Amino acid sequence: MTSPFVSDIPAERARLVWRDACAAAGCPPRVDAVVVPVAEAVGRVTAESVWARRSSPAFDSAAMDGIAVRAAETVGAAETTPVLLDDFAVVDTGDPLPAGYDAVIMREHVHHADGRAEIRAAVPPYQHVRSIGEDISATELLLPEGHRLRPVDVAACAAAGAVELRVRRRPRVVIIPTGDEIRPIGADLAPGEIADTNSLMLAAQAVEIGCEARTTDIVADDPDQITAAVRDAAADADLVILIAGSSAGRDDHTAGVVAAVGSLAVHGVAVRPGHPVVLGTVAGDPATPILGAPGYPVSAALTFDIFAAPALAALEGAAPRERPSTTARLARKLASAIGSDDWVRVRLGRVGGDVVATPLPRGAGVLTSLVRADGLLVVPAGVEGHHAGEQVRVDLLRGLADIRRTIVAIGSHDLVLDVAASALRAADPLITLASSNVGSLGGLVALRDGLCHLAGSHLLDPATGEYTLPYLDRIFGPDADLAVVRLVHRDQGLLVPPGNPLGLTGIADLTRPGLRYVNRQRGAGTRVLLDHELGRIAADPSTISGYSREEHTHLGVAAAVAAGRADTGLGIQAAARAFGLDFVPVAREPYDLVLRTTALDDQVLAPLWELLERHEFRAEVEKLGGYSCAETGRRIR
Amino acid sequence: MTSPFVSDIPAERARLVWRDACAAAGCPPRVDAVVVPVAEAVGRVTAESVWARRSSPAFDSAAMDGIAVRAAETVGAAETTPVLLDDFAVVDTGDPLPAGYDAVIMREHVHHADGRAEIRAAVPPYQHVRSIGEDISATELLLPEGHRLRPVDVAACAAAGAVELRVRRRPRVVIIPTGDEIRPIGADLAPGEIADTNSLMLAAQAVEIGCEARTTDIVADDPDQITAAVRDAAADADLVILIAGSSAGRDDHTAGVVAAVGSLAVHGVAVRPGHPVVLGTVAGDPATPILGAPGYPVSAALTFDIFAAPALAALEGAAPRERPSTTARLARKLASAIGSDDWVRVRLGRVGGDVVATPLPRGAGVLTSLVRADGLLVVPAGVEGHHAGEQVRVDLLRGLADIRRTIVAIGSHDLVLDVAASALRAADPLITLASSNVGSLGGLVALRDGLCHLAGSHLLDPATGEYTLPYLDRIFGPDADLAVVRLVHRDQGLLVPPGNPLGLTGIADLTRPGLRYVNRQRGAGTRVLLDHELGRIAADPSTISGYSREEHTHLGVAAAVAAGRADTGLGIQAAARAFGLDFVPVAREPYDLVLRTTALDDQVLAPLWELLERHEFRAEVEKLGGYSCAETGRRIR
Repeated sequence: MTSPFVSDIPAERARLVWRDACAAAGCPPRVDAVVVPVAEAVGRVTAESVWARRSSPAFDSAAMDGIAVRAAETVGAAETTPVLLDDFAVVDTGDPLPAGYDAVIMREHVHHADGRAEIRAAVPPYQHVRSIGEDISATELLLPEGHRLRPVDVAACAAAGAVELRVRRRPRVVIIPTGDEIRPIGADLAPGEIADTNSLMLAAQAVEIGCEARTTDIVADDPDQITAAVRDAAADADLVILIAGSSAGRDDHTAGVVAAVGSLAVHGVAVRPGHPVVLGTVAGDPATPILGAPGYPVSAALTFDIFAAPALAALEGAAPRERPSTTARLARKLASAIGSDDWVRVRLGRVGGDVVATPLPRGAGVLTSLVRADGLLVVPAGVEGHHAGEQVRVDLLRGLADIRRTIVAIGSHDLVLDVAASALRAADPLITLASSNVGSLGGLVALRDGLCHLAGSHLLDPATGEYTLPYLDRIFGPDADLAVVRLVHRDQGLLVPPGNPLGLTGIADLTRPGLRYVNRQRGAGTRVLLDHELGRIAADPSTISGYSREEHTHLGVAAAVAAGRADTGLGIQAAARAFGLDFVPVAREPYDLVLRTTALDDQVLAPLWELLERHEFRAEVEKLGGYSCAETGRRIR
Repeated sequence: MTSPFVSDIPAERARLVWRDACAAAGCPPRVDAVVVPVAEAVGRVTAESVWARRSSPAFDSAAMDGIAVRAAETVGAAETTPVLLDDFAVVDTGDPLPAGYDAVIMREHVHHADGRAEIRAAVPPYQHVRSIGEDISATELLLPEGHRLRPVDVAACAAAGAVELRVRRRPRVVIIPTGDEIRPIGADLAPGEIADTNSLMLAAQAVEIGCEARTTDIVADDPDQITAAVRDAAADADLVILIAGSSAGRDDHTAGVVAAVGSLAVHGVAVRPGHPVVLGTVAGDPATPILGAPGYPVSAALTFDIFAAPALAALEGAAPRERPSTTARLARKLASAIGSDDWVRVRLGRVGGDVVATPLPRGAGVLTSLVRADGLLVVPAGVEGHHAGEQVRVDLLRGLADIRRTIVAIGSHDLVLDVAASALRAADPLITLASSNVGSLGGLVALRDGLCHLAGSHLLDPATGEYTLPYLDRIFGPDADLAVVRLVHRDQGLLVPPGNPLGLTGIADLTRPGLRYVNRQRGAGTRVLLDHELGRIAADPSTISGYSREEHTHLGVAAAVAAGRADTGLGIQAAARAFGLDFVPVAREPYDLVLRTTALDDQVLAPLWELLERHEFRAEVEKLGGYSCAETGRRIR
């Protein structure tokens, strides 16, 4: 029944095929209705129309503080011909209109004298009277079926006489983690083992949209055990989610299991990440929809959004929640393979009045790309991509006001930026410092193109021995309106395994035969530094094994050394400490922030300049090791 | 200490004054931090930065199904010079890279022969290898302090080695309802009594933004009892909300109580509705912020949004949740008093490619204006209002996609539209039929101005005896591209108290001396019908007592008769039944839907045309009484 390859069905069509398969198999179209007290109905979906049982207000009442009168008795009253009333009643706002009276006069317009009220203007009937039913009339339609109840809705229902409401019960989602290598969160992990973070995430996604979620024990990569777990889960679920094994590899049993326990409607959708998705049903009384989610975390999260969330909303009889969207200028060219919807995570920032979208890493395994994303940009299956600078539509994961208050730094990455981001946020929850790592040169180009507020740079000019400044004229042209603020001085050196087993002492050792080096990408300041140091000793880069192997971050270099994939690489001391490596100092360099002069007074950046002056911040940075704050905050251009 | 009048402090300034007063009184700036398991941390706010404790993935792994090889051994492989490998390992996606291997070749590119793998292309080192730390590197900053955790965030934290997270505990809100006339929800209400719907709403608003909420018993309008309740609540709360009594009337004790138990920072803000707000603190160890909310429900709800929500977010150390916004074309002129921010509730609809905003009733007591609102339009204190057709910014209360799928009907209201709205929604949760009642003539003008899809009309032309059609040329000019679809025939008649105590038999009785009539507004079809019927018997409108008294709906007329404010009014039978009134038939009239011919094929309207053909729908309408569906769905122009 199951094919060895996964197909590429468009997402919209996959949803319809699954929906029809569920209907054909006898899955209930809606979860049951339950009757709950109004106070417990918030967030739930109405299972029937709500008609007002009584009017609100239920009586005529005073809309002002003052006196209730008979309007007819005020006829003829004017400044020169005041009318004196014996018959009136003092009322406060909200008081029922006493029987026999039909208007209210504000207390500011009444003069009391000898127990009588002096009126200097005639009033029409029903002046300042709040009528019965002004808000809600009995028998009026208050809410339709399929409405997700908000606080104001339940209050209005209660005002209209409802004590209980008929709503859909919460859909129940049962999540089944599978995989021989998967361990519960908190368990010690042996090499090759992975913590079950997907169940945690999917359960939280289900709860977030108003469902109940339960996760079963982890099931081994065994078709019989998976089959048993699926049958068991389906008996108690409105939707079963089976994690991993949804592709067509040796240990991918999901499609086969689903075909065996019910019907396999879809295997593979034209969505990336997320491609190997299984959609089907589990036979039973009633039958139950099942979703096979890929094990890569970004795929799992998006699969929930694209397939589970609409299915669960339909079970409640409600429209799925929708993300707000905005348009943004694309920071760089974005290629996309024809044939699949490409869900690209982007960072957003407001630079010079424009919202700019910068694509994040696109790997299905890079969950931090979702964590750091401010929005999702979907490149439809029929589109090859977008040009740099193109206006694109982005679904928002973070509020636009937040995004407008975000300091956008693109360029070389340094741990000090992370420390600054944390300190800024701790002081004021409204401030975000978002930094993207593309190397020093990439950052300067991004600044030139209006994509960021700040470019972090430590580019050495070999000709002059100066850092960063000589590059500015080349990239921005002469006399550009640029400011340069020193963030920190830092040590660069060789990251080596603990104990420095090869006894490396400096750059000259890198040409040793058999030594495996790991380099940084072109445009990275650390790479320029290496080339400069090699030039000083007249060493030929081609003699270094691994010179052409590139990592994009200090931490990436450190990770390669820690994993034994390389013997050494050039990087900062903080990266060495992160992976428990030793450090052989090579050079001390300045790390600077480049920005437009006009941005110096930008409100958004003000908190950063204040932070750089703070003693506690500088102390925290120097405590990291390998840093000096002697010139921190100094404007050097 | 307290003034007899409330002031008009701008909202932004009131927030700052309150914040400073809280700080001065010793209110804690943040709620305490607590350590919770990652699974329970979703929705909570980080109380410290989260740094990665381990890398994810924690090992190099295969990124494809295939074989692990030593890249060096593939050098020279090509189509014409294949290389045969003895030394390889079969791997699936996600498997750890076996020791000694440094690249993966996809299984599609491997030919197995005699236990050896034939390779026809050289591969570089680390091809299809997912590196240690690709997602997260140990010691990397994962999340800053003050971040509200989403499902992807907790999953990433768990992947980075976190089992527990340090987050802010939920702020505790204690709500104190006050008022002699207030009764618990569900209690029988004597005349003049009001159900305590505000506590329900405010508690739900607090829970919605992540707080815990508790409501005390209802407290009488007595300063001593209120004082005791406030002291008691403050001992257990991060914010106390005292409902009603916040103005300066006889029973308004909030300002006085707050001044007595702590400090009164603000009494009265320049926000409408919401003006009489009290902001202050309750002394104690520590002190507690207190908000005195007005008793009008719209004021109470907005006061929470404007003052309580930002204060509670600050206690969590997070940015307040933010509503998405859009721009819309204003349907009609909107006047606003200078001096106060005016929070106007609007309906939104997409008509002819444009999002159109129609202001809803602005009374502080009309909670249904919030229930029915799709957005909030704030007219700032310094602005006098907006012109019709002006582009305005609207904060969204409903998703734009929902709004785009909404059928917008403006004009005369009929219960059949409510029945249709319910039936459409029950069939498809994605469909909304929103109808606004402005009378038949107002509806036709709205259609002319591009503000709605449909205008409901039952306008009689006295000259011809024809309904609606003769008006179209007058309003739209000759040969306008209009279609008219019959919705229903319905009976109009006199609504009279049960038993018809005055023995009314028809329109001629309305001129009886002393009889109190209640009329509909100018432009309402029912008013035109009255005038026509009066003309037929040559009766002078000025002889009818109450002719100039206007209600805007059938239900409003029925409510006036039911409350004894009028003896009779002209309306539909359904309105009589709603208020338990008797009905004296006067005329049978057609009620039609007018629309642009181009809109006939609009996707948005298709479900309505289908509904009108359905037998069950027609049966349901005729069961209401006073309706005939003999011509329902027929196009009469």
